[in-house]
Amino acid sequence: MAGGDEVKEVRNQQVLARDYISAIPEESDMYLNTSSTIKLRVPDDDDCSTAGVLVKNLYLSCDPYMRSRMTKRDPGASYVDSFNAGSPITGYGVAKVLESANPKFKQGDLVWGMTGWEEYSIITATDSLFKIHNTDVPLSYYTGILGMPGMTAYAGFYEVCSPKKGETVYVSAASGAVGQLVGQFAKLSGCYVVGSAGTKEKVDLLKKKFGFDGAFNYREEPDLDAALKRFFPEGIDIYFENVGGKMLDAVLPNMRVHGRIAVCGMISQYNLEQPEGVHNLMHLVIKQARMEGFLVFNYYHLYGKFLEMVLPAIKEGKITYVEDVVEGLESAPAALIGLFAGRNVGKQVVLVSRE
Amino acid sequence: MAGGDEVKEVRNQQVLARDYISAIPEESDMYLNTSSTIKLRVPDDDDCSTAGVLVKNLYLSCDPYMRSRMTKRDPGASYVDSFNAGSPITGYGVAKVLESANPKFKQGDLVWGMTGWEEYSIITATDSLFKIHNTDVPLSYYTGILGMPGMTAYAGFYEVCSPKKGETVYVSAASGAVGQLVGQFAKLSGCYVVGSAGTKEKVDLLKKKFGFDGAFNYREEPDLDAALKRFFPEGIDIYFENVGGKMLDAVLPNMRVHGRIAVCGMISQYNLEQPEGVHNLMHLVIKQARMEGFLVFNYYHLYGKFLEMVLPAIKEGKITYVEDVVEGLESAPAALIGLFAGRNVGKQVVLVSRE
Repeated sequence: MAGGDEVKEVRNQQVLARDYISAIPEESDMYLNTSSTIKLRVPDDDDCSTAGVLVKNLYLSCDPYMRSRMTKRDPGASYVDSFNAGSPITGYGVAKVLESANPKFKQGDLVWGMTGWEEYSIITATDSLFKIHNTDVPLSYYTGILGMPGMTAYAGFYEVCSPKKGETVYVSAASGAVGQLVGQFAKLSGCYVVGSAGTKEKVDLLKKKFGFDGAFNYREEPDLDAALKRFFPEGIDIYFENVGGKMLDAVLPNMRVHGRIAVCGMISQYNLEQPEGVHNLMHLVIKQARMEGFLVFNYYHLYGKFLEMVLPAIKEGKITYVEDVVEGLESAPAALIGLFAGRNVGKQVVLVSRE
Repeated sequence: MAGGDEVKEVRNQQVLARDYISAIPEESDMYLNTSSTIKLRVPDDDDCSTAGVLVKNLYLSCDPYMRSRMTKRDPGASYVDSFNAGSPITGYGVAKVLESANPKFKQGDLVWGMTGWEEYSIITATDSLFKIHNTDVPLSYYTGILGMPGMTAYAGFYEVCSPKKGETVYVSAASGAVGQLVGQFAKLSGCYVVGSAGTKEKVDLLKKKFGFDGAFNYREEPDLDAALKRFFPEGIDIYFENVGGKMLDAVLPNMRVHGRIAVCGMISQYNLEQPEGVHNLMHLVIKQARMEGFLVFNYYHLYGKFLEMVLPAIKEGKITYVEDVVEGLESAPAALIGLFAGRNVGKQVVLVSRE
């Protein structure tokens, strides 16, 4: 590490969690700390001296799963621990290594993985970091199509749902970071795919940009069951579940025999004190259908295979990706909160620094 | 076929469906017709002359899935069609072939499969009939442990849940036709198994007769979640779902990572106008758990393999089976209705004739 006295100390703006919340999250549940500083070196303590890296954060990712981290729970009670009040928000991001005490990384490496909502971070849990080898795509893609959401779409669609050519696929929250990819994977697999979203703009994206066979605005459908029957007169083979609640209840009776539901998330439920009740589960029996929850963490061993498929598809224009990028850490709280109101159009990214 | 003029005509008491129902079924939704007669021959019409068999019904089976047949629905709307008002109830049973126009069956054969709630039946859908080869067990067993419920337990536990030694298994409606077998299969597989039922007598059966490691009366547990935590402090690997509703909601947060829920039925919901809402489905994601509905019809190709396993186990006393047998067709409506109030202790059978 660099010697103590030559170390530069710089401003390190941070977005901190204010306190735990139980209801609808608001921007004010986080706050910007502009007075923090950091010494630009890997600290010499036990945690860092053999494994730590100092990174400069370039892009940060806003993802729905982060909502559950804003609620106080016992450690280990969920698959991700709660944020620490008074500490920086943590999440996926793209960063550049400034200094490394870890033999796996060296100065100048670009990485994606778990980092902090701040300008610079010391990362000790380096197992979660992936080195970025392909830089002829936008770096921000590593928060989305080439990062966790991309792997989520890939694992959920291909591994959990085992699609077959000609099958019918329905995707909710279809213009989001994950949904837009599931729809495009479905088309590449020779499936018929319909998506739903919450604005006309998003519905247009689904049809015109992502090539969905059909799309609808769920807010304009007083009868979700009727909407699904319109697009799937013969039923749904695969449902990629992103929203939960009433949508799931409408989907269940429309499933086909041996249908599969990959449960990726239930964003419509995260801000409710008690999740809505789902009444139509008996249709799992009637249709001999399977409903399976999954977490991307268990599929990262497929990341290499995933890149082999998706990188050429991006370069050949067979897959496209829409991002909603805001600039500056100060914009991050509103961007995260906006996810739960569907304000983002495409993958929500925060640009912290252009290197 | 026998010549027309020598044919004996005999009484053929029948239990008929009165009309379709939408609420709680009652005995009076069925009625006994004592004035019907039948000519003891396979009719000479197109349907019967090449495939039909005339049988004498010996045992009839009361099964929860029959509830859904009492509601009027369009043909094909569920996996079983509705009963026809004014026609005999149909269901699984054990019968003896009196005459056969079907080369696969001959006079004197014992069979189990779909038959009518009457003394004699003409069966044309003979694909659903299994010939009984092993008669050194009670014949009534072919309505239960050696029939559809036995195959249901086998398919649901082994095929859907893929149990591993040392896993924890929870069975609801555990003393019923299917549950009592699932529990015993779990013990034979080296699992820890707990069952729930609705009376002290049934709970005693589970522990003393079927060898469950634990059992509780769900009616005496004000907090189902606490009850499950008491028996499964480390969570549930496999839930064999027979009841649905509140029980399912209590189970979901108690599932372990990569848990499996085989959805066999949801008997607590069948008499409700709208099924209860299930709120905790997000735990499928948190636990990466799978919930799968299944129907026994797709597993009958395993019936030979199943008999090879279960017949020796019965004879060696490794598996036991409790039946609740009522005598006479006139007792059948009350027996069927009793299922939904949990009045049966073990598999509900109606003895029509001792041959």
